[in-house]
Amino acid sequence: MTSQAQFLSDNAASVHPAIWDALRAADASDAPYDGDAHSASLDEKFSALFGRDCEVLWVATGTAANCLALATMVQPHGGVVCHEEAHIEMDEGGAPGFYLHGAKLLLGEGDGAKLSPDSIRAVIDPIRDDVHQVQPHAISITQASEYGRVYRPEELAAISALAKDRGLWLHMDGARFANAVAFLDVSAAEAAGDVDALSFGFVKNGGMTAEAIVFFDRGLADVARYRRKRAGHLQSKGRYLAAQLHAMLDGDVWLHNARSANAAAQEIAGACSERLMHAVEANEVFVRCSAAEREALRSRGFGFYDWGDDAARFVTAWNTREEDAQALASAISGL
Amino acid sequence: MTSQAQFLSDNAASVHPAIWDALRAADASDAPYDGDAHSASLDEKFSALFGRDCEVLWVATGTAANCLALATMVQPHGGVVCHEEAHIEMDEGGAPGFYLHGAKLLLGEGDGAKLSPDSIRAVIDPIRDDVHQVQPHAISITQASEYGRVYRPEELAAISALAKDRGLWLHMDGARFANAVAFLDVSAAEAAGDVDALSFGFVKNGGMTAEAIVFFDRGLADVARYRRKRAGHLQSKGRYLAAQLHAMLDGDVWLHNARSANAAAQEIAGACSERLMHAVEANEVFVRCSAAEREALRSRGFGFYDWGDDAARFVTAWNTREEDAQALASAISGL
Amino acid sequence: MTSQAQFLSDNAASVHPAIWDALRAADASDAPYDGDAHSASLDEKFSALFGRDCEVLWVATGTAANCLALATMVQPHGGVVCHEEAHIEMDEGGAPGFYLHGAKLLLGEGDGAKLSPDSIRAVIDPIRDDVHQVQPHAISITQASEYGRVYRPEELAAISALAKDRGLWLHMDGARFANAVAFLDVSAAEAAGDVDALSFGFVKNGGMTAEAIVFFDRGLADVARYRRKRAGHLQSKGRYLAAQLHAMLDGDVWLHNARSANAAAQEIAGACSERLMHAVEANEVFVRCSAAEREALRSRGFGFYDWGDDAARFVTAWNTREEDAQALASAISGL
Amino acid sequence: MTSQAQFLSDNAASVHPAIWDALRAADASDAPYDGDAHSASLDEKFSALFGRDCEVLWVATGTAANCLALATMVQPHGGVVCHEEAHIEMDEGGAPGFYLHGAKLLLGEGDGAKLSPDSIRAVIDPIRDDVHQVQPHAISITQASEYGRVYRPEELAAISALAKDRGLWLHMDGARFANAVAFLDVSAAEAAGDVDALSFGFVKNGGMTAEAIVFFDRGLADVARYRRKRAGHLQSKGRYLAAQLHAMLDGDVWLHNARSANAAAQEIAGACSERLMHAVEANEVFVRCSAAEREALRSRGFGFYDWGDDAARFVTAWNTREEDAQALASAISGL
Repeated sequence: MTSQAQFLSDNAASVHPAIWDALRAADASDAPYDGDAHSASLDEKFSALFGRDCEVLWVATGTAANCLALATMVQPHGGVVCHEEAHIEMDEGGAPGFYLHGAKLLLGEGDGAKLSPDSIRAVIDPIRDDVHQVQPHAISITQASEYGRVYRPEELAAISALAKDRGLWLHMDGARFANAVAFLDVSAAEAAGDVDALSFGFVKNGGMTAEAIVFFDRGLADVARYRRKRAGHLQSKGRYLAAQLHAMLDGDVWLHNARSANAAAQEIAGACSERLMHAVEANEVFVRCSAAEREALRSRGFGFYDWGDDAARFVTAWNTREEDAQALASAISGL
Repeated sequence: MTSQAQFLSDNAASVHPAIWDALRAADASDAPYDGDAHSASLDEKFSALFGRDCEVLWVATGTAANCLALATMVQPHGGVVCHEEAHIEMDEGGAPGFYLHGAKLLLGEGDGAKLSPDSIRAVIDPIRDDVHQVQPHAISITQASEYGRVYRPEELAAISALAKDRGLWLHMDGARFANAVAFLDVSAAEAAGDVDALSFGFVKNGGMTAEAIVFFDRGLADVARYRRKRAGHLQSKGRYLAAQLHAMLDGDVWLHNARSANAAAQEIAGACSERLMHAVEANEVFVRCSAAEREALRSRGFGFYDWGDDAARFVTAWNTREEDAQALASAISGL
Repeated sequence: MTSQAQFLSDNAASVHPAIWDALRAADASDAPYDGDAHSASLDEKFSALFGRDCEVLWVATGTAANCLALATMVQPHGGVVCHEEAHIEMDEGGAPGFYLHGAKLLLGEGDGAKLSPDSIRAVIDPIRDDVHQVQPHAISITQASEYGRVYRPEELAAISALAKDRGLWLHMDGARFANAVAFLDVSAAEAAGDVDALSFGFVKNGGMTAEAIVFFDRGLADVARYRRKRAGHLQSKGRYLAAQLHAMLDGDVWLHNARSANAAAQEIAGACSERLMHAVEANEVFVRCSAAEREALRSRGFGFYDWGDDAARFVTAWNTREEDAQALASAISGL
Repeated sequence: MTSQAQFLSDNAASVHPAIWDALRAADASDAPYDGDAHSASLDEKFSALFGRDCEVLWVATGTAANCLALATMVQPHGGVVCHEEAHIEMDEGGAPGFYLHGAKLLLGEGDGAKLSPDSIRAVIDPIRDDVHQVQPHAISITQASEYGRVYRPEELAAISALAKDRGLWLHMDGARFANAVAFLDVSAAEAAGDVDALSFGFVKNGGMTAEAIVFFDRGLADVARYRRKRAGHLQSKGRYLAAQLHAMLDGDVWLHNARSANAAAQEIAGACSERLMHAVEANEVFVRCSAAEREALRSRGFGFYDWGDDAARFVTAWNTREEDAQALASAISGL
């Protein structure tokens, strides 16, 4: 299968040139762990991006980012409200149970894998305030969601207002946060809303091995540093991770990459609007199609995942070529 | 401080050129996680190196390697016999407690941070076989040890015989395994002895972000794969880690690098044999010297860690230049 | 409110006279923990009851019994298939997450809080055999169920056949196992089926502070002994717990008590068959009734829990008096 | 062996008559768990005893009391400073690792299993404030200690001052707290000092199945309630545990019992002062004696534990008869 046919996932794409340059530039020996100059300047750079003070820890994976962030918010006897199709529930191999020491995911519903104040209340209101039931300590939402749907700033405001009202921490899984920002065409701060911690993904967006946990609460960050080491995620040569984050932020590479991926997804979506399972707002396109139709697409060299029996998932990446997206769009149109 | 003065640690050194080449070669998109071609061929390559079947998982850090390996061997209610100055006890931020779900480290003694059958028996023999005391499930030794001492093959044989006799798993922390092999001038298999799993370190030896867990027991590896994902250590673009391991093994880069580092350490050790706290068998040199002497060395541009009040630790790396080692040797001689 | 009006729960009832006698008889000093004569003879007595070898551990609560049993079956990275309304999911304050070190409950559906092979397959068949998803390690069913429904021997056989076929352990939460046996009018062995461990409840059935975990697999029991101590459930004066279990088994007190409770429940059920939410097979009666009707019953002195907005739960106990059950039946009839 | 010969332990002694009366009086059905009247009035009664507000939770064992208390004080990534021979380190089967989710015990030294500010500082001062080392979160001391030694009020004051200075919580394992109070002849408050939580033991002192955790910090108690349920230690018929605690406090049964046990220990100690390993301040007597001497004592019907190769441990209980203590004293004198 040739690379142009690859719509399987954004998580195996090649690395952006700026990353390579940054890695090379970071090669000179420096202090180990996160004592290096690259790591030391991350807080400042992300604070500038978000327009408010934050502390940033690099980690290698989104699973580690999500679970470390949540581990600072949730006591082992507590729970996290999340969508029933959230990545932390479905695809992290039980990592939240590990990192949160057995805390429970409390599952909510909502179209497009998005929670709303109503769906959150439907989870937490029936929980009696007694010791027999796991009490919620935090809410986790995904921006963009697992179905490529994006929370609008007013939706975020409503959720964070509920969180504050109930005394719950708010976490955002931003594995595709860049795509959400690109779609909303607002600042990073507006796309994040008033969350306490954000898992800001870069690997799916042209990075190699570095994600960021952005803490907007200093106390949480202080705990996270210990938990990161304890989880074996404090890498010796952390400068190579920090350098990737810098490379992505410098010149807004992260945003340009996300715009490219989103545009490719729109190209595809435009060709099959009647087949879409979910509005396309990021870089994932869920298309209803039969097994025979999927077979036809595969025979033409396109790679993608089946989504249940009656659909396919196409994911674009920062480096998806326009002609490839057009070719796929054309192929789907012609089914 | 210029780089030639750097004897602080091997864990922040620059990356070997072969690593860069391999990373570049792995850039083309491939399957995510460990489904890529580079990851798929690791078992074969390490099996050839060790002359027996093994299964290999990449992870980003030595802490993760050690703790994932041990987590497959030790039930949460069990214990791990290790040296009281073992890295897992002293320097991993409680990671064993996390990964092993509260299992206990059972601490033994021994010169140079090395265990022996006698020191192991001194730990386990007093443990009554009842539920009030934590029972040992595994032994962990470090090759080369935290003081740069190396287990001889016959020492390993004696420990593994004891382990088998008592029904204990045997793990080796090989953060500096390459240095041990280089010192012993034997095969990797002989330097590992009959361990069940080896944390084979590469980051301190010229790698960037990849270590290997080498399982000589298939059942343990099967568990480790789930635990790695659950710990957030299954990276999306695993090919960049696998490629580093291949680069290190191809052409015996790992061994050449270790020989270089060891030679530099010998250069230094030769200049101060009467000051040595431990025989120098790997790439660490522990030198008795006063605060004033340390100050004198630092004023000449040499970087290193104090080791308590009366000593200093010098660590060489794969890229320590001969002239720098000679300069340090000369400086220590002249104290 | 007078005691005869108490249909709130069986878990606060008075203690059966045989228990008091047994406690007194156990008062003489004996070996601590489970080294006493009473504890030592439990295996034999339960093995006789079940007609096959088993090993029995006393614990103080059903939550501890369930979670200790499951902890021997499920690795921390695994999962337990149970009903979405199972006690371990709904009412144990996250204890499975604690005892199983973050393992996950995988929730199935089914009328009356009963699982079936189909509903179990609906949970486990969609789970891909890869590390991103939590793999099932065990199944847990409740006999009688949380809605007072009882598994028939052929239903148990079908579930255990599925468990064996898939390599899953099978656990039974028998908080009201006695009521199930009484209803089925079969042997304890037939009511348990081919489970690997049974939490055999006595506290709701006239006991004071002792439940039994019955292990039909020696290896699981061996692990459980360590885990019980580690959970702080190995009581110093264990003879007082063991004595309770003996008192319940001697002369089939457990069965007589359950029959009494069941009969009282039938008395009530007979008066309101058209209002029943679930067939009454044990000692719980779920009755559809409005808030006004519940108020009317309470005004006459009857105690019970609301069950949502439109129903009430009445629970009978070993010592529910026939006249009280009749009075309640009459009151419900008269609504 | 006749009962008068029993000096093995206080943890298997018979139950005090007041306990039996209280259990009987609590038999009438009441609210389940800790919603009963007996449980509800514990706070008031213990607050009166200690002369300051406290909140009290019953649990079945000292291990659960210790570990639940510590679990409210220590984050999973933290540590507890305790003596290297503390019960939580030596005899709880790894329960702290379980309840504290892998937090670490940081072991200190001191005569008679007692810590001092100096020995505590020797543990915590070398710990660098970085993420590679486990940071202390709490201190745990045992009153009376595992060797029957008692902290004087001024010693407690010095330790709590250090704890406050370093921002550490302070826990007291009071499995034999009553014996310490009896020895010191001060108030319970003075014998407890300024601890944040006390595991107040009753089972070794004539109780049956109930210990108390006394929280002097409301926030800790709030967490402990959830953790107790999560650990399966919230018993359905909690009134039988609460009643035991009331019975012990009413009329100072706890203190009378401890005085009796202490007096018996003094009787024995007086006969062998030159053989004592530790000053006898509570109800444990550690006596140097050879294997032959121990054999001689056993042949005369005395029961006790060997303590290593050259000593024996004799423990008296609330119901040790004066003539039995005298007989033992005489027998030791005559060795």
